[in-house]
Amino acid sequence: MSPFDSRPTSGDIPLTTRWPEGAGTRGGLPQQALGRLIGIGVGPGDPELLTLKALRLLRAAPVVAYYAGPRKRGNAFSTVQDYLREEQILLPLVYPVTGRIPPPPFDYEGVMCAFYDASSERIAAHLAAGRDVVTLCEGDPFFYGSFMYLHDRLAGRFRAEIVPGVCSVVASAAALATPLVYRDQSMLVLSGTLSEAELERRLADVDAAAIMKLGSNFEKVRRVLTRLGLAGRARYVERATMRDQRIRPLAEIDPASVPYFSMVLLPGARWTGA
Amino acid sequence: MSPFDSRPTSGDIPLTTRWPEGAGTRGGLPQQALGRLIGIGVGPGDPELLTLKALRLLRAAPVVAYYAGPRKRGNAFSTVQDYLREEQILLPLVYPVTGRIPPPPFDYEGVMCAFYDASSERIAAHLAAGRDVVTLCEGDPFFYGSFMYLHDRLAGRFRAEIVPGVCSVVASAAALATPLVYRDQSMLVLSGTLSEAELERRLADVDAAAIMKLGSNFEKVRRVLTRLGLAGRARYVERATMRDQRIRPLAEIDPASVPYFSMVLLPGARWTGA
Repeated sequence: MSPFDSRPTSGDIPLTTRWPEGAGTRGGLPQQALGRLIGIGVGPGDPELLTLKALRLLRAAPVVAYYAGPRKRGNAFSTVQDYLREEQILLPLVYPVTGRIPPPPFDYEGVMCAFYDASSERIAAHLAAGRDVVTLCEGDPFFYGSFMYLHDRLAGRFRAEIVPGVCSVVASAAALATPLVYRDQSMLVLSGTLSEAELERRLADVDAAAIMKLGSNFEKVRRVLTRLGLAGRARYVERATMRDQRIRPLAEIDPASVPYFSMVLLPGARWTGA
Repeated sequence: MSPFDSRPTSGDIPLTTRWPEGAGTRGGLPQQALGRLIGIGVGPGDPELLTLKALRLLRAAPVVAYYAGPRKRGNAFSTVQDYLREEQILLPLVYPVTGRIPPPPFDYEGVMCAFYDASSERIAAHLAAGRDVVTLCEGDPFFYGSFMYLHDRLAGRFRAEIVPGVCSVVASAAALATPLVYRDQSMLVLSGTLSEAELERRLADVDAAAIMKLGSNFEKVRRVLTRLGLAGRARYVERATMRDQRIRPLAEIDPASVPYFSMVLLPGARWTGA
């Protein structure tokens, strides 16, 4: 249980085991009587990088859902906690697994799927009772956000609204004071979780790139960049816009120290025509 | 001249023809006496998608610079105009060329280079006089923004601060209610101005993509997507989050009607594992 469960939660609300497909749109209550699923991007970490719209909807919502690790509040919650109202219902969605994934026979996909199913039903109970549920998303809701799994399960049954947010890619560029893409340049965003061969293949032909989800993948990413002759152009930043943001040269980084919230940017070549 | 030049402008401030390299950092006035160049992302168009930080810095700045077309106010200005204070100095940077580029011998690159030089010096005059200059950027300052040309010219001489913004890619995904990238998927952002062959080559092997700068390039982009068998997956949106936002099926669009502020998204395949 999260420490926030001492504040009012959904504990007293009967959960349906499976919300009937299409309820609220074709059968049951009229849709306007149902709550809205509102995914808000809270930005990269600095609470001031919330949008005005996200703040307005956050303050207005009776229920605030957010992902968190066991015994942690989660980055999205920490970002917005000063904006919350005392009477809001908090709905922490506590990941069953964080960090390194246990090896088989542990069924990671199955465990996560059950977790997203159960989380969706906790939210659905509030929506069915007519309460809007704001779900907090680090960065932007549709850009690698776990919110997408809730949206995929609930958007067909309830009204959904998405408030886009400042994503980590542009926040990292701002933190590094480095323009990202000029004119007709392309930019590839990719995950450090890809295999070394796949990273090398995809990075071999880019104008600009952002490599996310570093953590334990950092050493592999640095090897690839070095092999491709791109290490000199690459810029590294940890926890961009957060209080403990750190910028260091790629060559000096201890791979064991690299957090998940870090990024390597390959900025596009400066446009010299203008 | 812009209609806003009737409000106080820099007209009475003597401009140096060339600001000495490194002034303020190594010679001349101490840097704290100089103004800061502040690039703020104002987001995709909805004034409520400004961040709290952008709004704070915008309201505090004595000078507000922005790009605009001849006899137009520009999208960035329109987005924030309700937030401006009466006493702020407006510095419109009026593009010498907009829309279709005249054919050679017209020296487009030379004309634009001179324009960015002159614009930088207009801003530099305020910075040198100790006034912060907020420059408005549609979307994010470092993501295809013309602000980058000012930053490239001024950041070595003055303190610069960048406030990242909600970029059009994630705003379009929100408008289309379509999750963009899951897990280890990659996303390619590319410009519709590329040649047909180049677009085809780059789009042939993507998990997810965003194609920007459509306008007169739309027909070419649609041909490529059709040839690659991607047209069915592609989603189209015009002026995402603006008051006249429009979403239509790709097949039904009249290419002559497509504005610059439009986008084609190829969302990543829905993650079915979880």
